[in-house]
Amino acid sequence: MNGYRVAVVGATGAVGTRMIEMLEQSSLPIANVKYLASKRSAGKILKFKEQEITVEELVPESFEEIDLALFSAGGGVSKKFAPEAVKRGAVVVDNTSAFRMDPEVPLVVPEVNENALYQHKGLIANPNCSTIQMVVALEPIRKAFGLKKVIVTTLQAVSGAGNRAIKELHDETEAVLNGEAYEPQILPVAGDKKHYQIAFNPLAQIDVFEDDGYTHEEWKMIHETKKIMEDENIQVTATCVRVPVAVAHSESVWFELEKNGATVSKLHDLLKRAPGVVLEDDPENQIYPQAVNAEGKKETFVGRVRPDQEQSNAFHLYCVSDNLLKGAAWNSVQIAERLHALDLLRVPK
Amino acid sequence: MNGYRVAVVGATGAVGTRMIEMLEQSSLPIANVKYLASKRSAGKILKFKEQEITVEELVPESFEEIDLALFSAGGGVSKKFAPEAVKRGAVVVDNTSAFRMDPEVPLVVPEVNENALYQHKGLIANPNCSTIQMVVALEPIRKAFGLKKVIVTTLQAVSGAGNRAIKELHDETEAVLNGEAYEPQILPVAGDKKHYQIAFNPLAQIDVFEDDGYTHEEWKMIHETKKIMEDENIQVTATCVRVPVAVAHSESVWFELEKNGATVSKLHDLLKRAPGVVLEDDPENQIYPQAVNAEGKKETFVGRVRPDQEQSNAFHLYCVSDNLLKGAAWNSVQIAERLHALDLLRVPK
Repeated sequence: MNGYRVAVVGATGAVGTRMIEMLEQSSLPIANVKYLASKRSAGKILKFKEQEITVEELVPESFEEIDLALFSAGGGVSKKFAPEAVKRGAVVVDNTSAFRMDPEVPLVVPEVNENALYQHKGLIANPNCSTIQMVVALEPIRKAFGLKKVIVTTLQAVSGAGNRAIKELHDETEAVLNGEAYEPQILPVAGDKKHYQIAFNPLAQIDVFEDDGYTHEEWKMIHETKKIMEDENIQVTATCVRVPVAVAHSESVWFELEKNGATVSKLHDLLKRAPGVVLEDDPENQIYPQAVNAEGKKETFVGRVRPDQEQSNAFHLYCVSDNLLKGAAWNSVQIAERLHALDLLRVPK
Repeated sequence: MNGYRVAVVGATGAVGTRMIEMLEQSSLPIANVKYLASKRSAGKILKFKEQEITVEELVPESFEEIDLALFSAGGGVSKKFAPEAVKRGAVVVDNTSAFRMDPEVPLVVPEVNENALYQHKGLIANPNCSTIQMVVALEPIRKAFGLKKVIVTTLQAVSGAGNRAIKELHDETEAVLNGEAYEPQILPVAGDKKHYQIAFNPLAQIDVFEDDGYTHEEWKMIHETKKIMEDENIQVTATCVRVPVAVAHSESVWFELEKNGATVSKLHDLLKRAPGVVLEDDPENQIYPQAVNAEGKKETFVGRVRPDQEQSNAFHLYCVSDNLLKGAAWNSVQIAERLHALDLLRVPK
């Protein structure tokens, strides 16, 4: 074998197409790729570098002779097919929420908890997009000063809800500009009862509501952050808002540190050296992270670092990242690269 | 006299035109109105109810025979002309930041600190838009449980930067949808050095940056809140973000209470009874405040009330209000109505 046999599940989706791009750019040795999707998308032709690949219908047997399977076709698909893949010897990196909180499954952001990969049993979960960029930004600070509490408000792009949501934002925005009627059918949550206008209208709902008044997206940010940072004592609370943006999430993060002595200058130094982080923080020259600049990039862009003026050891930052790349496709491929580098890209006996 | 002689300064602007609408709907007895603006806008004809009014160029003598002057033409104009108006016997309600932090000038949101009107010396300041809706939402809670700390992230509409910013959002959005180039000239801040795309791109800058890394908009939220609530001990910190929305600001507010015993149900009861507040909080039925529903309304809409799950006495809420109405024009006219009701609509000797 001169490379891995790789399957992409959900290859035609917003994340799936980016997974293919990330694999094309990856240093991972790849022998061949297989694109899998629902029956509806089977037969479509997608490229891998110069090669044309016909999308196949996903069945359990799809994973025979596969070493690595990247899943991004919804939680239901992962629940059903990820175990089938592992059973057949494929290592699965799953981008859905199906297994994230399973204590047997590592939930990994390589910049934060790469070591958790050593515990994998064939399945590794990719965290929620909004969580990933926040922990990438906070981890260098946590390492130096400890993290006591995080309060985050997100401004999230519609592409987190898939290609249909991007199209809805586009078509609805055109309709509003032309004074025409438009009936929303996807946002805020495709599977929920009501759909609302996103064009020129933020929606304070991402994913469905839990009984406690939090949305499931907020729940994910709270619980995934603790699992990734391996510290149940970090207090996290979140408000997640969908905004009329196609790609890249923006996040306003307030955080309280355990230790004394942090300054903006020290936090800047930590962020400048941090893996996966680009510091864009120069207020005098109006430099701060922006969605349009982050789109298509793998890094998390961090700026607006400043102290809470009335609480020592509390600060703000603002981070922006491409939700389809670091928030999904790139983090998944990056996990695969790290598995390879650590000689872990195989299902343990 | 069977009514007040009213001048609107900045009558052709985004807020000025709303001030006229609010005066038209007001119970305030009005004898006549005068519309004032820069030389550039003089000669334009605007309505007051059925009447056609020619906009006049603003000069100090404009305020002869005026009882009430509503200013919304920029801080420089207010600094120069508001004292001229008061000198001539007009009570000024100023919607700019020129006098807000002047200890001699009441800064008033009628639902919160109407009593401050008794101290006026001819000039009353209207607070910043983003501050007003937050204090309207928090005041009933503060009264019952005390307020220790507030951390707010705003998602603010471009109309706060005037009619030219609304046009920029519209034209730029069309250009982006059509794949055409567009050179931003207004946002984020007309008078600042650089201008950035707002279409599909949040901008974490409203007003200019202070030396401490906060924007002036954030500074206003911090300091105006303390002044309006008449309590320097309330800790307030803010991140203000401009979003691609034409009208109505949305705010994600985390707050810590002084006293024990608050519950979502108790906060709901307080908010239901609170003046100027409409509670829209029914997650099960996907009911939460939205900009498109708040536009054109005078109230502040509040929802997403829920406890911080790891800090007793800390909660979240999400509030939305029309930044041109409660955030500016309506609050100004409401101040005038309350001055009239309290027999304070005259310059004290």
